[in-house]
Amino acid sequence: MSNQPQVGIVMGSDSDFPKIQNALTALDSFGISYVVHVMSAHRTPRLVEDFAKNARANGLRVLIAAAGGAAHLAGVVAAHTTLPVIGIPVATDLMGGLDSLLSTVQMPGDIPVATVGTGSGGAKNAGILAAEILAVADDGVREKLDAFRQKLVQKILDKDAALQEKLSHGKNA
Amino acid sequence: MSNQPQVGIVMGSDSDFPKIQNALTALDSFGISYVVHVMSAHRTPRLVEDFAKNARANGLRVLIAAAGGAAHLAGVVAAHTTLPVIGIPVATDLMGGLDSLLSTVQMPGDIPVATVGTGSGGAKNAGILAAEILAVADDGVREKLDAFRQKLVQKILDKDAALQEKLSHGKNA
Amino acid sequence: MSNQPQVGIVMGSDSDFPKIQNALTALDSFGISYVVHVMSAHRTPRLVEDFAKNARANGLRVLIAAAGGAAHLAGVVAAHTTLPVIGIPVATDLMGGLDSLLSTVQMPGDIPVATVGTGSGGAKNAGILAAEILAVADDGVREKLDAFRQKLVQKILDKDAALQEKLSHGKNA
Amino acid sequence: MSNQPQVGIVMGSDSDFPKIQNALTALDSFGISYVVHVMSAHRTPRLVEDFAKNARANGLRVLIAAAGGAAHLAGVVAAHTTLPVIGIPVATDLMGGLDSLLSTVQMPGDIPVATVGTGSGGAKNAGILAAEILAVADDGVREKLDAFRQKLVQKILDKDAALQEKLSHGKNA
Amino acid sequence: MSNQPQVGIVMGSDSDFPKIQNALTALDSFGISYVVHVMSAHRTPRLVEDFAKNARANGLRVLIAAAGGAAHLAGVVAAHTTLPVIGIPVATDLMGGLDSLLSTVQMPGDIPVATVGTGSGGAKNAGILAAEILAVADDGVREKLDAFRQKLVQKILDKDAALQEKLSHGKNA
Amino acid sequence: MSNQPQVGIVMGSDSDFPKIQNALTALDSFGISYVVHVMSAHRTPRLVEDFAKNARANGLRVLIAAAGGAAHLAGVVAAHTTLPVIGIPVATDLMGGLDSLLSTVQMPGDIPVATVGTGSGGAKNAGILAAEILAVADDGVREKLDAFRQKLVQKILDKDAALQEKLSHGKNA
Amino acid sequence: MSNQPQVGIVMGSDSDFPKIQNALTALDSFGISYVVHVMSAHRTPRLVEDFAKNARANGLRVLIAAAGGAAHLAGVVAAHTTLPVIGIPVATDLMGGLDSLLSTVQMPGDIPVATVGTGSGGAKNAGILAAEILAVADDGVREKLDAFRQKLVQKILDKDAALQEKLSHGKNA
Amino acid sequence: MSNQPQVGIVMGSDSDFPKIQNALTALDSFGISYVVHVMSAHRTPRLVEDFAKNARANGLRVLIAAAGGAAHLAGVVAAHTTLPVIGIPVATDLMGGLDSLLSTVQMPGDIPVATVGTGSGGAKNAGILAAEILAVADDGVREKLDAFRQKLVQKILDKDAALQEKLSHGKNA
Repeated sequence: MSNQPQVGIVMGSDSDFPKIQNALTALDSFGISYVVHVMSAHRTPRLVEDFAKNARANGLRVLIAAAGGAAHLAGVVAAHTTLPVIGIPVATDLMGGLDSLLSTVQMPGDIPVATVGTGSGGAKNAGILAAEILAVADDGVREKLDAFRQKLVQKILDKDAALQEKLSHGKNA
Repeated sequence: MSNQPQVGIVMGSDSDFPKIQNALTALDSFGISYVVHVMSAHRTPRLVEDFAKNARANGLRVLIAAAGGAAHLAGVVAAHTTLPVIGIPVATDLMGGLDSLLSTVQMPGDIPVATVGTGSGGAKNAGILAAEILAVADDGVREKLDAFRQKLVQKILDKDAALQEKLSHGKNA
Repeated sequence: MSNQPQVGIVMGSDSDFPKIQNALTALDSFGISYVVHVMSAHRTPRLVEDFAKNARANGLRVLIAAAGGAAHLAGVVAAHTTLPVIGIPVATDLMGGLDSLLSTVQMPGDIPVATVGTGSGGAKNAGILAAEILAVADDGVREKLDAFRQKLVQKILDKDAALQEKLSHGKNA
Repeated sequence: MSNQPQVGIVMGSDSDFPKIQNALTALDSFGISYVVHVMSAHRTPRLVEDFAKNARANGLRVLIAAAGGAAHLAGVVAAHTTLPVIGIPVATDLMGGLDSLLSTVQMPGDIPVATVGTGSGGAKNAGILAAEILAVADDGVREKLDAFRQKLVQKILDKDAALQEKLSHGKNA
Repeated sequence: MSNQPQVGIVMGSDSDFPKIQNALTALDSFGISYVVHVMSAHRTPRLVEDFAKNARANGLRVLIAAAGGAAHLAGVVAAHTTLPVIGIPVATDLMGGLDSLLSTVQMPGDIPVATVGTGSGGAKNAGILAAEILAVADDGVREKLDAFRQKLVQKILDKDAALQEKLSHGKNA
Repeated sequence: MSNQPQVGIVMGSDSDFPKIQNALTALDSFGISYVVHVMSAHRTPRLVEDFAKNARANGLRVLIAAAGGAAHLAGVVAAHTTLPVIGIPVATDLMGGLDSLLSTVQMPGDIPVATVGTGSGGAKNAGILAAEILAVADDGVREKLDAFRQKLVQKILDKDAALQEKLSHGKNA
Repeated sequence: MSNQPQVGIVMGSDSDFPKIQNALTALDSFGISYVVHVMSAHRTPRLVEDFAKNARANGLRVLIAAAGGAAHLAGVVAAHTTLPVIGIPVATDLMGGLDSLLSTVQMPGDIPVATVGTGSGGAKNAGILAAEILAVADDGVREKLDAFRQKLVQKILDKDAALQEKLSHGKNA
Repeated sequence: MSNQPQVGIVMGSDSDFPKIQNALTALDSFGISYVVHVMSAHRTPRLVEDFAKNARANGLRVLIAAAGGAAHLAGVVAAHTTLPVIGIPVATDLMGGLDSLLSTVQMPGDIPVATVGTGSGGAKNAGILAAEILAVADDGVREKLDAFRQKLVQKILDKDAALQEKLSHGKNA
């Protein structure tokens, strides 16, 4: 693990920050450094272009973009780089974020965006997906991912044990 | 009416040309000159930026952008100009173009796109809307718009007369 | 900037007022005068017709109509004028306002409505779009629009700076 | 059965005629006279207003309006009369006509539209519903409706018999 | 106005009562008597059948059915009578009641349900539509409907006056 | 395997027969006898009620109902029996059958319908699900189901082998 | 009724427990024993496989799986058993759970999932459907189901009586 | 470029092959070797598990899974590996593949699937995204990606030139 940021995260509005914090937490848990910025595909297109164009030269290896509504941010980032770009469709009031999802995922052929879900797990998955991509060239991250998966099994077993406990109490009560 | 193009039209793919031809026909009918280009928000972002940034200086007064799927083109154009930008959501196989519509219309506050419909009338309406906008400063176009409206009434009256004819024949047959 | 109202705004119900106030604020910020009225396409069709028919003669140059559900107001206004009509689809409980959006945007060919989004930015964008249309013939408004865009960049930069501050504190804590 | 038309039918476009013919056939089968016109809520609002306003005085007792997309026609007719108005949402390419359905049915409180389905049965049901409404004051129509229902049962029984025949042949073959 | 109930209202669950109360209020305002019952197409199909089959003999002239989800109630009522049946799709958590709406409106040819909207105005409109249907044979109700429409205009004018007052105060403040 | 029919299948229209034939084929392949009838929840409610009420006494153990649009048939069948009822939502032009699906699956608590998919596999799955239910009390059917599953694996392996063949030819060509 | 569990219930997350409790209550009311476990198709695929593969040998006769979002759990369970599998689509914020519903119900031909609704009645119906399936081979459960249905009628009659009481008080007040 | 396959592609049905061929073509164009198999999450879960579990050991570095309807394949693959998994939602008749999209993208937190679009560009983008991921550790692929992007610009410029040619001919004709 190096201190050089490997993942670059952008969001369309600072109000989206709570919705993407799970991505940061996930990256932290794998010891992956990152930068995170507020920038808007529509209000600050030049910032987005500069960020995306220089991302590889700046040492970034995966980019994550979060936006809602006509969520163009991930697509616009992808237009300016060949780094893998992960899109987080931020939930909105229109059908729970179907607008964000479609605007992010339905990219034309040639310029992909790796899209995750609109739900609470979406941002977390963006962070994990970034780790999976870095693990292609980083055995340390790969090992952490494998360990993370192992822990998931134990977590579920613990939750199931708690449920059995609760249910048997219910029956005895 | 000058020969100087006043409306700039861009489409994300040359395969969209048949779908926007109604916009051109409408502009032609009002004697409004235009330029039309293929350019892609994702494949040629720099072309789009240059087109939008220089549009006003080049004498354009209204822009029209047509795209389908994650239809970012109108929004990206709007990000680079304060000219009015009209978005045509090109129909797709996903719910008939709901993806195109939402990607075009659900713009964040600050950067509007004047969106028309996905149906066959959408492109035509983009051309008429451009004329209505130009008419704010052009009495010649305004008069043509008013005449166009008058003709619509007669067209419907003619269609109704044809229907009455047809129905009365049906009854006599 | 003249005191003569240039933009006419109608809403289907006075309960929609809070949802369109952003449009008024935007117009105020560009020094554009406007009138705003409650009138219903279905309950007071004659009022709507009179308003739309006389709008140009009354000096109005752009109209804005806001309605929800079977949101016919913008379309009915557009039926009675060749002024540009901007439609704000007011969010509802049915899929977050998809009914309002489709009823506003899917106009038949010949009679366009320039539709903005259902989200909180929609009303604001209606005001800005009206300004962009007026700027076709008003350099003063155009300059204000350009200045507004410049300020957007600074706003985002400030928000990003605040985020960096917050994140670096988080790391030091 | 009188020759005085009792049902007034309007459609937004003459291209909708094949889609509403089932309504006419249904009315014919009940011996109910009708008039049918092409008129558009947006292209000929005055025609629509005149038609709706004079409908009761002209002896019409039920109105039917068919339109697609931003299908405002039924709502605009309803705005100008207290006769019962039946709306037929004509299917479109956008989600099979969900736009037409929502634009027709989601009327604001105070001005109802009695909406039927988008499918092939919708127009037929508009005609039958008109008959059911007229039957409130017309025992002749009521008796025809009751006889029609009886025939439906026999039709289904015949179809079922045909199916049994077909299936038993399949088994013997 | 007679005391003999003319409208029969059924709802699938007593929890729907608050959602249909507007229908009752509307009928009250037109002096129309009604009966209202809880009965379920699925839990008490025989009750529904008996209610619908005997409705005409019991003097009812219009029926209203309200249900949510797989909202079969209106359709099942319509299967057992040739009285006009109005369906109120009660809003649910699935896309705001799109399930209720489609289950109510998409009836097969032969058996219509006159469907109103899912929003708060839907139940009110069911009551008004029932009045419009009764007015086919009742001039007293027709006159009340016309008076009701007149009052709507004044109501909107009053709301608009209140808005102008509020806005002018805002400007003076 | 007995000749006594164990599964009762009803469809709302004989035009649905091709769409449910896969269910019959599946039942045939497991040696399960069945009856199949055309009957309509709305046009022949009494037939449906009689069929459902007498189903258990007639030796039927599982029922299957197929319908489209406002697809009430499965729900109405379920209202009259405590036999397991499987619903097949027949695809329509409205969003590919979303209306059929929601009308079938969104049943109120107390009266379940076991719903399968709208796609081409839906009817087949209805037949297989019926077999799985009968297998609760029939070891012969259970063994056939297990054998069927085994064959699925071989089928896929064969298809994969064919694909590898095709791809290697492509490479050599 | 035996103490040997006959129904196996799995849910994708312990947070889903409140949403499926109605299924347990329903099974309890029919005296049907069950086991219930937390396990995830994605986090603990091996647990799910083992559970499903051994279910029949462990005496289970019906399985129920509840999950939300990309709700794969029921389908993955069904892939490993020929026992009937009931799927409960847990409501989410995306269109009220349309994602869960489609992921559960749209299974490919060969592997059915018996899907119930997303609403509050869905889990209850899963429990009742399990009872209906068991009743194919268990007259005791069948009798309880019949008694349950009888009680539903009385419940509705009681609610209707309460409504009449309330309405008559309202009139006297 | 090595001959050792780096990308593993699975599809749920061999009928999906034409729909994913663009992914293969894209990989070929970047000189990336791959394996491609038919296997089904539901019919051959063991095959899928074995494929996914052994993928990394077999030298694969990115996986692609294509499926339609209740498209569980990508999610089930992701459950058994920490390699990056790209999901292609194959278009269906239900809302153009919204079922496939939601089943693929709405994964629970912890197990991401990198989802691409349903349209014709989706499969192509899956291949390009795989290349972008491999390029994290492969400068040869990265250079090919950069060259590919450059060619896109020229392609669009050529199409635009052809359009200008066509339009100028139109004017001269």
